[in-house]
Amino acid sequence: MTPKTPSESRTVMTDLVLPSETNPLNNLFGGELLARMDRAASISARRHSRRITVTASVNHVAFNSAVPLGSVVTVEASVSRAFNTSMEIFLDVWIEDRFTGERTKANEAIYTFVAVDDTGKPTEVPPLEPETELEKQRFAAALRRKQLSLVLAGKMKPADATELKALFTTS
Amino acid sequence: MTPKTPSESRTVMTDLVLPSETNPLNNLFGGELLARMDRAASISARRHSRRITVTASVNHVAFNSAVPLGSVVTVEASVSRAFNTSMEIFLDVWIEDRFTGERTKANEAIYTFVAVDDTGKPTEVPPLEPETELEKQRFAAALRRKQLSLVLAGKMKPADATELKALFTTS
Amino acid sequence: MTPKTPSESRTVMTDLVLPSETNPLNNLFGGELLARMDRAASISARRHSRRITVTASVNHVAFNSAVPLGSVVTVEASVSRAFNTSMEIFLDVWIEDRFTGERTKANEAIYTFVAVDDTGKPTEVPPLEPETELEKQRFAAALRRKQLSLVLAGKMKPADATELKALFTTS
Amino acid sequence: MTPKTPSESRTVMTDLVLPSETNPLNNLFGGELLARMDRAASISARRHSRRITVTASVNHVAFNSAVPLGSVVTVEASVSRAFNTSMEIFLDVWIEDRFTGERTKANEAIYTFVAVDDTGKPTEVPPLEPETELEKQRFAAALRRKQLSLVLAGKMKPADATELKALFTTS
Amino acid sequence: MTPKTPSESRTVMTDLVLPSETNPLNNLFGGELLARMDRAASISARRHSRRITVTASVNHVAFNSAVPLGSVVTVEASVSRAFNTSMEIFLDVWIEDRFTGERTKANEAIYTFVAVDDTGKPTEVPPLEPETELEKQRFAAALRRKQLSLVLAGKMKPADATELKALFTTS
Amino acid sequence: MTPKTPSESRTVMTDLVLPSETNPLNNLFGGELLARMDRAASISARRHSRRITVTASVNHVAFNSAVPLGSVVTVEASVSRAFNTSMEIFLDVWIEDRFTGERTKANEAIYTFVAVDDTGKPTEVPPLEPETELEKQRFAAALRRKQLSLVLAGKMKPADATELKALFTTS
Repeated sequence: MTPKTPSESRTVMTDLVLPSETNPLNNLFGGELLARMDRAASISARRHSRRITVTASVNHVAFNSAVPLGSVVTVEASVSRAFNTSMEIFLDVWIEDRFTGERTKANEAIYTFVAVDDTGKPTEVPPLEPETELEKQRFAAALRRKQLSLVLAGKMKPADATELKALFTTS
Repeated sequence: MTPKTPSESRTVMTDLVLPSETNPLNNLFGGELLARMDRAASISARRHSRRITVTASVNHVAFNSAVPLGSVVTVEASVSRAFNTSMEIFLDVWIEDRFTGERTKANEAIYTFVAVDDTGKPTEVPPLEPETELEKQRFAAALRRKQLSLVLAGKMKPADATELKALFTTS
Repeated sequence: MTPKTPSESRTVMTDLVLPSETNPLNNLFGGELLARMDRAASISARRHSRRITVTASVNHVAFNSAVPLGSVVTVEASVSRAFNTSMEIFLDVWIEDRFTGERTKANEAIYTFVAVDDTGKPTEVPPLEPETELEKQRFAAALRRKQLSLVLAGKMKPADATELKALFTTS
Repeated sequence: MTPKTPSESRTVMTDLVLPSETNPLNNLFGGELLARMDRAASISARRHSRRITVTASVNHVAFNSAVPLGSVVTVEASVSRAFNTSMEIFLDVWIEDRFTGERTKANEAIYTFVAVDDTGKPTEVPPLEPETELEKQRFAAALRRKQLSLVLAGKMKPADATELKALFTTS
Repeated sequence: MTPKTPSESRTVMTDLVLPSETNPLNNLFGGELLARMDRAASISARRHSRRITVTASVNHVAFNSAVPLGSVVTVEASVSRAFNTSMEIFLDVWIEDRFTGERTKANEAIYTFVAVDDTGKPTEVPPLEPETELEKQRFAAALRRKQLSLVLAGKMKPADATELKALFTTS
Repeated sequence: MTPKTPSESRTVMTDLVLPSETNPLNNLFGGELLARMDRAASISARRHSRRITVTASVNHVAFNSAVPLGSVVTVEASVSRAFNTSMEIFLDVWIEDRFTGERTKANEAIYTFVAVDDTGKPTEVPPLEPETELEKQRFAAALRRKQLSLVLAGKMKPADATELKALFTTS
């Protein structure tokens, strides 16, 4: 299959924080942001694979900044690495000051999606070819994350997780 | 502060999968399940801390099984370890066969919440005292997960992550 | 059919009161609570009957206490009596003080569900065998409620409603 | 206070059955209809009292007919009797055949609302003056229903429920 | 086909402004009102045509008055003119003062719907016969609006838009 | 005030068509699309004005293509002309074929927003400086649309609508 670049799956979802999505501190509920990111990531995965795609895992999401009611939130998603039938999607979340228009990074998240056929069976996806420096870093880190998740799930021996092992034994 | 047990924060949220929550394969959207788990975890964190609590991170969620439209889904959350101002919440998700009533495990997830005061400032929480064997395992693993997340965020040197290092160097 | 106990159909639905569910006094809308109780009752009815179940009637719901925004609300439902193809479901609603954790009873409600097959035709359900004292009281009262509803609907003569008649003539 | 007629509080709410409101049989969820009726009844109560109004109880709702996806549903609510600070609201629910336009009665429901001031304290409402034959019947029956609900709640002795007692002892 | 009058398609949708539908000024979001009006207009179009109907265009909507949270909003829709397979629907939106009950006009809107068969193909609708003075004015103006929309879409030469041309050349 | 370009207010909102947003033909409800476009337009208006903005009118929306369930829909909004306190926003709506990824234009819409201060009073906005050929065409047409809407509202004499008059008298 012909490789694709991250920009071919880039998905931009800008929307308001609505009153029905806020917690008692009047900030966006973590759960609502998780749901928005899941939709953005699924579009990105579909753009890369041109298949139905389903969430396989949420690898890590850090909620560093509160997102207040009425904010403009932009979720940007693109595929950071493709494996055989799965894709890692990296998401950046930005908020925008209402008055100055200044954009600040609110969150990062990493989701994994699997491409499936109409019966729900996993199906092959094109490889990813990173272009920019940031895309290359995320591409490399994606392999470490995959090994880590296999180790934590007991599906890979720590000794075989060469990328990870280096991290701990050489430092 | 007096320690609490996991059962004091146990939260059970049983609900249907509604038509508005399904993807093109007629299964529960990953994003909707993430939002439900976030609400259950926040109740669990509140029961442990008796404070306003906000999502700090989603550490890992694996979507192993599709959850079809009309299913009965039970999310069970309880605090698996308390740190200074944060709590790790472990969630188990079960689905129930409509006809036989048989329960099967659909997902596991781990969220971290921070207790805050009315101004949003982090505030101390009681320690956790695990009781059952499973609670003790999850309590121990929570420390490894915390170290891992500090290492990945560049806030702890791999060499200082004693729990993690053992995992890779002794095998 | 083998009888079942109320605990086999017990359903616990704990969730937050979200901002989109509140009235001008910032309390949970009656209608939203009715909808939540309907879902909990339908799960309970399904657990008893292992069938598709549809709401037949809401017998009585008293809204004694307001449920403020941000509350943790627990709806507990279980079958209180089974008739031929219908089940009475008794619901207790609890709210929990955010700071002390004290639980108080907010509402009670009684719904009736009918079990149906795939074509929507009513179908037989197992009998109910109450165990605790409270379950036995609710089981007995369910028959009075059924007679009352038949009398009010003009489908039973008051003279035949033996349970009810006793109530008025002996006091 | 000047009495009002039922037509002064009549509220008509016509809307579609949306896909997000349906159960596994593709019919309107009982709970959604309860929520719609609650909103219509609250508008009716407000039109009668010109106060904030809160749901006090749902006296009885029978779901006689399924309401399929895509149906046009009309909820008509009007005050059927006013007591000191509370109002009984009678609701009729109609569905309309998509092709012939024929209207059929799908449900009836009876809700009770209380008028409150800004602090949530019950406050007096105008009396109701029924005009049509049907309004007069519903007005009379409302008193029997109130006595019944007081008896069932243990707040009135059956012997004092004169309207009800007659029903059982004279037949 | 037998003509119908506007009153045969009149649709009344009274509902509350819920907290989840408000903007940062605590007024109803324009977008929510557009969605409500679309549902009311589609019911009106269906009542006129007894067909599935789909939105073809929103011709003009002026938001003259803010609609505050908690308001009672009444949307009234009826067919103002029928063309071959399309219908113009005129909508009036009223809000009602909570305390005095006084109704004020908040908005007007004009939508166009097309009647379609099960495959989505446009299908003929009955002509409209206006009765009141206001209905006759709206009926006449509907033709000018249709010509205008054809001219703006480049589907009619301005010279052929006789109704419109008169407006500009005779004044 | 310093002029801004359309690209400074460009807003991209890509999202899925969810099951809860579809009509009986399984296509996106017109009303839901209107609500999405309203949110995108309001973000665009805010980016241009750095003020709270409220919908003033929807000038024209043509629904040329159905948008099926599961589609990826992209709404692109940018300010097409700024007047004293109001802004015309032009929206393009694209859908994307799930399998080929081909983008097709589904709709166009034009909304007008007003910038307001915290009390809801209209407040001045920067002028717009169009750059591309398309932006210049939309900028010019915006004046004709404004005159037309003033004429239709009876706030401008047709004879004074110089831009419009030319359209009808010179052809």
